[in-house]
Amino acid sequence: MFNKVVIIGTGLIGGSLGLALKKKQLAGQVIGLSRKKANANLAKKCKAIDIVGKSLEVVNNADLIILATPVDIILEIAPKIAKKIKSSCLVIDVGSSKEMIVTSLDKIIPNFVGCHPLAGSEKRGAANIQPDIFCGCTCIITPSAKTKQLALNKIKLFWKKIGSKVVVLSPKKHDQALAVTSHLPHALAFALISSVPEQFLGLSAGGLKDITRIASSDPGLWSQIFLSNRSNLLSAFSSLQNKINALKIAIKNKNKKLLTKILAASKNKREKLG
Amino acid sequence: MFNKVVIIGTGLIGGSLGLALKKKQLAGQVIGLSRKKANANLAKKCKAIDIVGKSLEVVNNADLIILATPVDIILEIAPKIAKKIKSSCLVIDVGSSKEMIVTSLDKIIPNFVGCHPLAGSEKRGAANIQPDIFCGCTCIITPSAKTKQLALNKIKLFWKKIGSKVVVLSPKKHDQALAVTSHLPHALAFALISSVPEQFLGLSAGGLKDITRIASSDPGLWSQIFLSNRSNLLSAFSSLQNKINALKIAIKNKNKKLLTKILAASKNKREKLG
Repeated sequence: MFNKVVIIGTGLIGGSLGLALKKKQLAGQVIGLSRKKANANLAKKCKAIDIVGKSLEVVNNADLIILATPVDIILEIAPKIAKKIKSSCLVIDVGSSKEMIVTSLDKIIPNFVGCHPLAGSEKRGAANIQPDIFCGCTCIITPSAKTKQLALNKIKLFWKKIGSKVVVLSPKKHDQALAVTSHLPHALAFALISSVPEQFLGLSAGGLKDITRIASSDPGLWSQIFLSNRSNLLSAFSSLQNKINALKIAIKNKNKKLLTKILAASKNKREKLG
Repeated sequence: MFNKVVIIGTGLIGGSLGLALKKKQLAGQVIGLSRKKANANLAKKCKAIDIVGKSLEVVNNADLIILATPVDIILEIAPKIAKKIKSSCLVIDVGSSKEMIVTSLDKIIPNFVGCHPLAGSEKRGAANIQPDIFCGCTCIITPSAKTKQLALNKIKLFWKKIGSKVVVLSPKKHDQALAVTSHLPHALAFALISSVPEQFLGLSAGGLKDITRIASSDPGLWSQIFLSNRSNLLSAFSSLQNKINALKIAIKNKNKKLLTKILAASKNKREKLG
């Protein structure tokens, strides 16, 4: 499908994409680059990449470039590679927020397609590379008015070939949705665990563990994501606040009937998640 | 250890306690009672109880009574059994809040010991009975000034024999701790899922699923728990609110350094949970 593929950022997502590309025989050669030399070496050891790239010069002649670094680094690297790539080169990113990235990269890269595979975990780095994390996952592709149809089709096919279900959304809609389904839950998990007094940590069961699992996520990565989707995230906080207030009022007023009704509606919605 | 044991409420916790008692050969005979006939019959089929009791009269001559119903039903049933039991009969409950129950039951039952095994899940009922849920779990025992030492010692031993780690706390301290480690997380899970617009549910990954798993919990059971620990829960909401506000301010001000610092402290605390 692609002759030369360059993955910039060989962590959990980038490295796992390398493995998937190679497993499905979609790439002639996969070159990996990482700010952390050890991460790229580990990715090579896992056979997620064939070669560890020495500098951004390797993007020369690439057919597909995958930007799999944190959001701020994607924005930093894109202008650097824009002048080095051939005009037919497809470039995708896998960042967790899309509007800022798509707006920015659309201007400088002719065949850019924004992507966000809803895979990954609270664990980062090449040590957590897995070949099958995209299998069965939803990948949101976020074309803009500038996206070329041929590029879009090829990228759709690429995600389908590695087993993902493709959903197409505008970058704006993506960011609205993910603010609610991912960014707010992460922010909340961080806030919740910090509100638990240290001496009470041992007096907890599975509920607290599950609800705060994602508070083990990487602070630098997530502060970037929160800031790159700032206004949607702040709106999501407001919606949540309304729901919290409704619960608090029912509790304050000892209104068992209303409280049970609110909880039942939540349970009902939760069950749709599977 | 006990000749005749009566379990009132043969759901997940009551039924699993029956199984554990029988597995460890701690009871001569286990009688189970449930408001839902099917639940008691299923518990019997699972061999969690020997006999399905027909009425509260079965508490006559019992050596141990386990109150394993929702909090409000515990408060309703206790006065009814108080007059029927022999004075040496040990009575425990397994309710999720303790101050209200201990204060109330201490007055009418001579050998009452409040307990709260930190086991269970969002699933309820005899269909989810498991023999080993207490193995390795923490059981909080909440004696008061009125609790008899002999009764306390025997109940401690009972929980240890079925594999639990015993922690002794005052009912007040228990309720403060659990408001934060259990009741608030549950309330929050219910609020969070209700703030997710229906059309975005499909655009989520494992994070949202995990963080809202406990929003599948039983609405009637949890509205009772929230109301029975009302003031501690409202305080816990306030502490959380402060943490949410700190995050929101850092996001509003685009203060990446502060935001990363807050998230790093949360991650650090979360990692202590294991």
